[in-house]
Amino acid sequence: MNDSIKSPPSNLPPSHTTGTVALRWHGSSLELLDQRLLPVQEHWITFEGAAGVAQSIRDMVVRGAPAIGISAAYGVALAARHAGGGDWRAEVRQAFGELAASRPTAVNLFWALQRMERVFACCNSLGEAQKRLEKEAVAIHQEDLAANLAMADHALDAMGLSAGGGNASPVSVLTHCNTGALATGGYGTALGVIRRLHEKKLLKQVYADETRPWLQGSRLTAWELVRDGIPVTLNADGAAAAILAAGEVRWIVVGADRITANGDVANKIGTYSLAVLARHHKIGFMVVAPSSTVDMSLASGADIVIEERDGSELREIRGIPLAPEGVSVFNPVFDVTPANLIDLIVTEKGAVRNPNITGMHKLFG
Amino acid sequence: MNDSIKSPPSNLPPSHTTGTVALRWHGSSLELLDQRLLPVQEHWITFEGAAGVAQSIRDMVVRGAPAIGISAAYGVALAARHAGGGDWRAEVRQAFGELAASRPTAVNLFWALQRMERVFACCNSLGEAQKRLEKEAVAIHQEDLAANLAMADHALDAMGLSAGGGNASPVSVLTHCNTGALATGGYGTALGVIRRLHEKKLLKQVYADETRPWLQGSRLTAWELVRDGIPVTLNADGAAAAILAAGEVRWIVVGADRITANGDVANKIGTYSLAVLARHHKIGFMVVAPSSTVDMSLASGADIVIEERDGSELREIRGIPLAPEGVSVFNPVFDVTPANLIDLIVTEKGAVRNPNITGMHKLFG
Repeated sequence: MNDSIKSPPSNLPPSHTTGTVALRWHGSSLELLDQRLLPVQEHWITFEGAAGVAQSIRDMVVRGAPAIGISAAYGVALAARHAGGGDWRAEVRQAFGELAASRPTAVNLFWALQRMERVFACCNSLGEAQKRLEKEAVAIHQEDLAANLAMADHALDAMGLSAGGGNASPVSVLTHCNTGALATGGYGTALGVIRRLHEKKLLKQVYADETRPWLQGSRLTAWELVRDGIPVTLNADGAAAAILAAGEVRWIVVGADRITANGDVANKIGTYSLAVLARHHKIGFMVVAPSSTVDMSLASGADIVIEERDGSELREIRGIPLAPEGVSVFNPVFDVTPANLIDLIVTEKGAVRNPNITGMHKLFG
Repeated sequence: MNDSIKSPPSNLPPSHTTGTVALRWHGSSLELLDQRLLPVQEHWITFEGAAGVAQSIRDMVVRGAPAIGISAAYGVALAARHAGGGDWRAEVRQAFGELAASRPTAVNLFWALQRMERVFACCNSLGEAQKRLEKEAVAIHQEDLAANLAMADHALDAMGLSAGGGNASPVSVLTHCNTGALATGGYGTALGVIRRLHEKKLLKQVYADETRPWLQGSRLTAWELVRDGIPVTLNADGAAAAILAAGEVRWIVVGADRITANGDVANKIGTYSLAVLARHHKIGFMVVAPSSTVDMSLASGADIVIEERDGSELREIRGIPLAPEGVSVFNPVFDVTPANLIDLIVTEKGAVRNPNITGMHKLFG
């Protein structure tokens, strides 16, 4: 097990290692940064089995579609690593089941588990499974980071900003939720594009929606950007429209949890609202995600299962009541943005402009 | 001072006295419900002078444009009531200044103070000022409540639901911030319309935006509606678009802090976003406010001073950090919805459909 990596992978240029990571692989254990405690506390939890990893995905110790997929892959590797002497196949299969049941919307989870399953199916011994499953999980992790870097290139191309910047003026962007190093194998999807703009001195200002109810924007995105010296201003979700009306923001840049064959996008609740606002204000709307987020088996967003979480996320915060006890709450975690409101879908395979079924099939068919 | 009232006024039918009030007048003191502590605690603070009332408006012990105007009027009455033997005119004049400086956006504050000033200007003795200023403040309070009831009538008329309901099916509505008994002299503006729909069995469901950062929706609106048995479901502000896309909501109903001569509306941050979403989903967008909210001296929303409050409203909650320390925050309290996104402006004087300068001048010119 000496070929295990620690993230971020050391074969990447230093400018891409932000120092901020959501997970650390140690060969026989996985450490997850408990994102529920940020920005107050940086607390790491160590796991040696899949059940704990599955629970951590469910409880949002780790979140962000790509980071969930990577964690699940390591969860399978852990199940093999610590399998008992008995029916090791059954033990690993149980891990697959537990991990698949953790969260329903982000397709990266299922994509990563399918990759692991294909490897698992060909293993003839526990020793082989241990070696090959770890190797596959590490590959999923490394490929995600590499994909983030490729996405940033494609996005700047599509924005007409790739030629080193040149005479281009810095732009201001608005983002939602957290799509950074904390949500991925490192660097980030939408936040990776923002990071790249900053590296190239093409970024004026990031407006970050606080992203209720889980506050990924204030707790995670603002925290990452402040750490990395990227100029960020936090705003209530309801203030995004006033910011767009002021005319400074040129692009809204968001991630995705699932993208269907027609280009519809499921992403953090509030994304659809931003897409409507972008169209109204004639501002670009860009979705950035690894191709593992694309689910060509679903015809449209209407087919996506939208997770709803407990109303306590709105009724209280850290145990303090914010609403009358027992009040009815509608708390969907994601919404669906129809393809016709999206200007660009950017993946590591390239960008789809004005996405529709034809453009999606061309790149992902 | 025996003609002083306690709110709600006793000359109104019982169905209109909700039991929920934001302020109580006792002739020589004013009690304000500390709305910062709701829904956890119902704590009343007693004031005998204008300075404390002004501070309470600034600190949002009392909020809501009409309730701010009423409180300021009582503040002036208190200044006269407790004026020392010396230069009582100077003392009352100081109160006017303190109260006017408390908050900048809601015009009802200045409207109420102007009414009080006109009375004050004609007083020849302290005794006369005490009597007449109290009487005027009580009148402002009572008229506001009566105006709320008239607005509800006009709104149902404009919705085509006034004829006792008849065969009309109950509708679902979405609202933002708090515009109920807690924001007014009682009953409510937008929430008064919702209350009236409920009384006439024409209300299916209220969706209440939680309304970050101050959480007026979860802390105040949900609290009022739960108390009064009106069916309410709380949602994150970012979930409003998904709710509208689901197709059940027929109207978005909101209040206002200032309405300009062309029909532009300043209201709680997040309102403008809802107006864009309403238009996109072909849903009615209605603004309900007393005519004291109309400021015909301003040509358009561009002339309105938009208050910004401290970033700590987003950076922490009850002392718990939600964002990295010192992160830059954009925290405007209001935004401006242009008239062309508004279907109805409803006041106690009647409704303006598709508001513009002509329609506004007809009713308020």
